[in-house]
Amino acid sequence: MAIADAITALKAALGDKISTSPSDTALHGQSESHFAPMNPDAVAYPISTADVAKIVRICADHHCPVIGFGVGTSLEGQTSAKRGGVTVDFRDMAALVETAEADMFARVQPGITREGLNTELRHSGLMFPVDPGANATLGGMASTRASGTTAVRYGTMRDNVLGLEIVTADGTIMRTGTQARKSAAGYDLTGLFVGAEGTLGLITELTLRLHGQPEATAAAVCAFDDMEAAVAAVTATIQCGVPMARIEFVDGATALAFNAFADAKMPEKPHLLVEFHGSETAVKEQSETFGDIVSEYGGADFQWTLQAEDRNRLWAMRHNAYYAILASRPGARALVTDLCVPMSKLAAAVEETRADIAASPIPGPILGHVGDGNFHAILLMDPDSAAEKEAAMALSARMVERALSMGGTVTGEHGVGLGKLEYMEAEHGAAWGMMGQIKRALDPHNIMNPGKLVRLN
Amino acid sequence: MAIADAITALKAALGDKISTSPSDTALHGQSESHFAPMNPDAVAYPISTADVAKIVRICADHHCPVIGFGVGTSLEGQTSAKRGGVTVDFRDMAALVETAEADMFARVQPGITREGLNTELRHSGLMFPVDPGANATLGGMASTRASGTTAVRYGTMRDNVLGLEIVTADGTIMRTGTQARKSAAGYDLTGLFVGAEGTLGLITELTLRLHGQPEATAAAVCAFDDMEAAVAAVTATIQCGVPMARIEFVDGATALAFNAFADAKMPEKPHLLVEFHGSETAVKEQSETFGDIVSEYGGADFQWTLQAEDRNRLWAMRHNAYYAILASRPGARALVTDLCVPMSKLAAAVEETRADIAASPIPGPILGHVGDGNFHAILLMDPDSAAEKEAAMALSARMVERALSMGGTVTGEHGVGLGKLEYMEAEHGAAWGMMGQIKRALDPHNIMNPGKLVRLN
Repeated sequence: MAIADAITALKAALGDKISTSPSDTALHGQSESHFAPMNPDAVAYPISTADVAKIVRICADHHCPVIGFGVGTSLEGQTSAKRGGVTVDFRDMAALVETAEADMFARVQPGITREGLNTELRHSGLMFPVDPGANATLGGMASTRASGTTAVRYGTMRDNVLGLEIVTADGTIMRTGTQARKSAAGYDLTGLFVGAEGTLGLITELTLRLHGQPEATAAAVCAFDDMEAAVAAVTATIQCGVPMARIEFVDGATALAFNAFADAKMPEKPHLLVEFHGSETAVKEQSETFGDIVSEYGGADFQWTLQAEDRNRLWAMRHNAYYAILASRPGARALVTDLCVPMSKLAAAVEETRADIAASPIPGPILGHVGDGNFHAILLMDPDSAAEKEAAMALSARMVERALSMGGTVTGEHGVGLGKLEYMEAEHGAAWGMMGQIKRALDPHNIMNPGKLVRLN
Repeated sequence: MAIADAITALKAALGDKISTSPSDTALHGQSESHFAPMNPDAVAYPISTADVAKIVRICADHHCPVIGFGVGTSLEGQTSAKRGGVTVDFRDMAALVETAEADMFARVQPGITREGLNTELRHSGLMFPVDPGANATLGGMASTRASGTTAVRYGTMRDNVLGLEIVTADGTIMRTGTQARKSAAGYDLTGLFVGAEGTLGLITELTLRLHGQPEATAAAVCAFDDMEAAVAAVTATIQCGVPMARIEFVDGATALAFNAFADAKMPEKPHLLVEFHGSETAVKEQSETFGDIVSEYGGADFQWTLQAEDRNRLWAMRHNAYYAILASRPGARALVTDLCVPMSKLAAAVEETRADIAASPIPGPILGHVGDGNFHAILLMDPDSAAEKEAAMALSARMVERALSMGGTVTGEHGVGLGKLEYMEAEHGAAWGMMGQIKRALDPHNIMNPGKLVRLN
């Protein structure tokens, strides 16, 4: 049996860095998503790139699946061990290796989390801004091409990874990119591995672009009578060139969930939550310009603040939105959708989705990173009700079709995993075939996270 | 004979869109670079994606090389027909297909130039900021991953192409990316084709990210006693988070060339040329902050202006730097180098390069996009002197070694082509092998721009 042989060889080579305990394998077969558990046969805890290379070489010899694992916050089943095999947990490779302050980059191991990294950077004057909400690992964030609340200003993981160290499918250790800020030297392999969800190799080190901590930060909240007005205000703000650091939309249902979960005292209306980064003069000017724009679109209760305390409360609330919404229906399990459409289609996409959810038997508050045209409905279903699960899946499928018909994408930031696999051909056409060609060329035995992102044969 | 058979078939299928006239083939075998001419056997002038697909299918049937061509401004021999074949000139595919103002993107055919595009966008309030100096085509700029003076603010072509239409090596028409501003749906094929120099397929349409024309623009010039002080001022400015739109370095020799070519009246000293984009308040504040920083580093004659006329004169001069420097040694031919290093290594890289050139028999003014750590020496050699050519090649090779030893790249923005091919293994190691694997998988008969960027076998 290929997998059993691989595990025997792994234990011989790596000793107690390999676990087959049922609690370990069960823990690594689940995630925060709605997928049924799919457990690996073993979990490896490497402490070095050399360990990872050894693990992958042994698995390659036995054609045994290898799945990367950070902290398990992915939402599309990326870490499920669909065909069993060995999950590589980067728990013990979580160091900040180097902070190059003058060059504004950091080298990190894949298991460090974004909060862990920013805590270590605290006194450097620098920060790593990509913020998907969850305190995910950098290896996982790169693998799913994560983004989140600050992408409108600082870009996604695609824009903030300068280079990688990779263990390829045959166990070779390889470096992509350089420490320079740009390069035109050949195919962009860094970009190929960011978003590849571990299907082409495992990331063992990342060189990350850092940004200066802003001199001043202002945050603001504003309520609108309807979602169209809120979205129109966002579009107008972007077109005016106001450089927002964050611009988040939450609907009335989400505002109610915030009130219950965090005593937010928000009216049951759509809101925009924004943040500005820059010099004190600049953020004041930006806040005032934004205030003028929202008042044109009927925005009410506009308040902005330079106080760190108010700001932190605002974003803690936003980061806990998922939990606040889950708590709004005790016992429910969530299916989190993840569309991204061109800005001109955003109001229609949100409104059609809202009406569709309203006509269904389940609740589904909507919120999103509207500066990017990206939004999520958090569909809340009773895990014991087949009818509710079916309703959620049908809503999700219609949202995907809606995004594609509007020129958008089936996933703005959560990735493909298992959950979006069936839509890849509809989104990409012939380009999905090319993804399969690349996968076959770089992982001919299909051992790297098999069953995700691409289909072979 | 495979190529002759392909041309016969192409003429039968496409009639007078195929030229074998000696003047046409000679024109397409040259470029602005120092490489000896390598002419194609025929030149195709497609007017549609369907034409391009037909051309590539016929060439694939006969294993005939296919080389894409814009306006021939590439600097590393990317358009040389190293193995003969058919050059596809996109002269007749140069339309702005769509401007989506609310969504801030444009769809263009590959043959439109950046100045042509910005002229068409003039009244939209939007612009395409990537500016490599030459009035290159967008297809060429994407293929070489061009950047230039504005990359410090707006990024390179990597950051500003949202999607592509590609004709693959077997003649399939394929789309990558969507019209949404981000996506996490699978391998980043857009990023793979940007910078691939036509070795994986031909770009037949681009979806480009547009940016708002800034409300106000300020430009400034400042002289320094030495290059180290200028570079230190740049680093300090970036670390203070001042959002510069352009920050260019020119050395004393370049300043003299400007004086002769454009009556610039600059002292023979290193200079920084900068530009700020934003609201009027913001650019004033940024200019003043920059003025404070440069005065700390001994900057002299600091002047800033909001006048479009002064600004245009400044950047016209910078854009003509190549010609100004060429004119400083009548009859000379130029070898333009293109290093990019981490910012902390920039002063040492420039100074070592300057000293190396000073000890050589040829002149080589230095200038660069110092906000990115990218600089060029324009090595001026007598085309009839083997000794001078050898000196230039040796200087260039030492610059490349210097960049690699400093953690940088052998090409910041000009690409690989023929000129940097021999350094790819030194820069990438095992990753260059992976580039070859991708090339073999996507172009198994090696017909797309063969002999560039990767080596097969």
